[in-house]
Amino acid sequence: MDFKIAVLKGDGIGPEIVNEAIKVLDKIGEKFGHKFNYEQGYLGGESIDKFGKPLTDETVELCKNSDAVLLGAVGGPKWDVIDPAIRPEKGLLGIRKALELYTNLRPAILYNALKDASPLKPEIIGDGLDMMVIRELTGGLYFGKKELTKDYAYDTMYYTRGEIERIVKKGFEIARLRSKKLTSVEKANVLDSSKLWKEVAIEMGKDYPDVELIHMYADNAAMQLVINPRQFDTIVTENTFGDILSDEASMLTGSIGMLPSASLGDGKVGLYEPIHGSAPDIAGKGIANPIATILSVAMMLRYSFNLTEEADTIEKAVEAVLNEGYRTGDIYSEGTKKVGTVEMGELIKERL
Amino acid sequence: MDFKIAVLKGDGIGPEIVNEAIKVLDKIGEKFGHKFNYEQGYLGGESIDKFGKPLTDETVELCKNSDAVLLGAVGGPKWDVIDPAIRPEKGLLGIRKALELYTNLRPAILYNALKDASPLKPEIIGDGLDMMVIRELTGGLYFGKKELTKDYAYDTMYYTRGEIERIVKKGFEIARLRSKKLTSVEKANVLDSSKLWKEVAIEMGKDYPDVELIHMYADNAAMQLVINPRQFDTIVTENTFGDILSDEASMLTGSIGMLPSASLGDGKVGLYEPIHGSAPDIAGKGIANPIATILSVAMMLRYSFNLTEEADTIEKAVEAVLNEGYRTGDIYSEGTKKVGTVEMGELIKERL
Ligand SMILES: CC(C)[C@H](C(=O)O)[C@@H](O)C(=O)O
Ligand SMILES: CC(C)[C@H](C(=O)O)[C@@H](O)C(=O)O
Repeated sequence: MDFKIAVLKGDGIGPEIVNEAIKVLDKIGEKFGHKFNYEQGYLGGESIDKFGKPLTDETVELCKNSDAVLLGAVGGPKWDVIDPAIRPEKGLLGIRKALELYTNLRPAILYNALKDASPLKPEIIGDGLDMMVIRELTGGLYFGKKELTKDYAYDTMYYTRGEIERIVKKGFEIARLRSKKLTSVEKANVLDSSKLWKEVAIEMGKDYPDVELIHMYADNAAMQLVINPRQFDTIVTENTFGDILSDEASMLTGSIGMLPSASLGDGKVGLYEPIHGSAPDIAGKGIANPIATILSVAMMLRYSFNLTEEADTIEKAVEAVLNEGYRTGDIYSEGTKKVGTVEMGELIKERL
Repeated sequence: MDFKIAVLKGDGIGPEIVNEAIKVLDKIGEKFGHKFNYEQGYLGGESIDKFGKPLTDETVELCKNSDAVLLGAVGGPKWDVIDPAIRPEKGLLGIRKALELYTNLRPAILYNALKDASPLKPEIIGDGLDMMVIRELTGGLYFGKKELTKDYAYDTMYYTRGEIERIVKKGFEIARLRSKKLTSVEKANVLDSSKLWKEVAIEMGKDYPDVELIHMYADNAAMQLVINPRQFDTIVTENTFGDILSDEASMLTGSIGMLPSASLGDGKVGLYEPIHGSAPDIAGKGIANPIATILSVAMMLRYSFNLTEEADTIEKAVEAVLNEGYRTGDIYSEGTKKVGTVEMGELIKERL
């Protein structure tokens, strides 16, 4: 099959890590008989430098006309000083919204080979972590009505029932493919938007009698993640809660350089990106960890192209390389073999 | 001196733990020559049962006419089913608002004797944790305009500049008394209310050149708390962010039964309560940990009555009892001596 992929390398380490992911994809194409065609677009700081804004109509069009979007990372101190309306992050928020990517999948997986990297004690980690945090991505506090004046400011956590229904439905569907346990996180004891969220979750749960539905307040979820993370399988939650809790969950693995993400809508185009940032401090040094981006490409194969075997192949190759003891600097520990960005990419490619 | 304290024992283990705290207070009164007068009020489930609502005007009046309020805990499954408008939590939110208690102090301290209780690895904990999370408590997402309909719902994270100024000022004042490092947590890359928050923090920082001011996004704070909690001294943040992050921070200590809180306004009346809940499952069994409530009373002496030596005396007594190896069930570990609620209260009282 032929696929068209929009590639937004972005800023900082973005280009380096995306290059490795593309090598891996190409090798998968060779091996399984697919053709991946890449077209470059611009997002974030790079786009600001070229076009004066973090996201252009051309990039939106490019993405809409592709089968999937591969993104590196955006932002850096260079653009921190400028007008907030044209900061790199606006590009990211803009493309999510433009493509209606309302489902953000953030797996938090602690690989066996990296168990020691977790900040949590071994008795809490047990034989590993494997959660999926599903964050609503185009509504809630991020996109509701907002206003900033000298004297007051506000943001609105606004949801229609339909917006909640579609994301909670994704939650149930994904939980069903995993261990059939869905934790719906809200703050229904205080917030009206959470009350509606919980109501919808209960209602929709009737259609998924095989999935255990658990309701949890956001503050409690933040606690439970730390003391008993293994109780979670699939979590579904509002945009801001998801921003905070998925980041907390990711850190339990101790290696943010390992974690991919997928942002999906109802249309076919999904956006795939590592959850880590553009790490301007190590950009261009050839030491960034490309694994999160390579695993993002595996998610692309799985969720946008339905190529399960191909996705599995990548994930297994990553695990194999870790088991052989290869590490980039961010996950290095004594007794393992330190490699750079390109070498890590090559190693994974070879194991495919 | 003579002090009038409104006592709201509340639900579940509330009465048991408050009783021990009162014993400790009385002993302090004896020792230092103060008289503490108690008057009972009702909050939460208890108030619902008696008066049909979680907070009555009488209780508000009682609190307003006192020098401080001591609260146990509210809520329980008995009241979970009823009309949300009269749930026990509404009483808690109501009393905070009625007394304009906009400053919520939530220390997260990991005692040396309980170091093993932390879910974090020893190398992350180092020689302990001692943070103060300051949560804005009468504004933000909790109290902005909200609406719930069948088809949509919203909450508003609304702040006036004045509301932000007064809480950020508290942040600087408290940081100044601690290690002069204030982390202001917001999400200014996305939220307008956070942009105003950050602007105010920067502006106000000019008046506190001796305090180091750090700006951090809420998602990053959730991560940093897990991987590097020792970087934090004093944190100041919005109501909802503070709800989530203070709970996360508290769990790093591994013993929520140890943590007190204070809620303060500009008036003299402060409200003091443990951060844990009413634990209905162990209510009446005489096994609840009274230490969080006893330490809340120490905060009362410190913040409402300006009795620093008296407060120190309680905190030292708690530490002494822990060092001697006494533990309630929630913090029990092999090799320590298990005691009940009353016995723990007595032990602390004896050590004063
Ligand atoms: C950069 C920022 C706008 C973004 C967000 O908050 O969504 C990031 O934190 C993320 O989680 O992808
Ligand atoms: C019970 C609930 C309303 C309350 C809150 O969210 O403020 C509690 O979680 C707390 O943190 O004191």
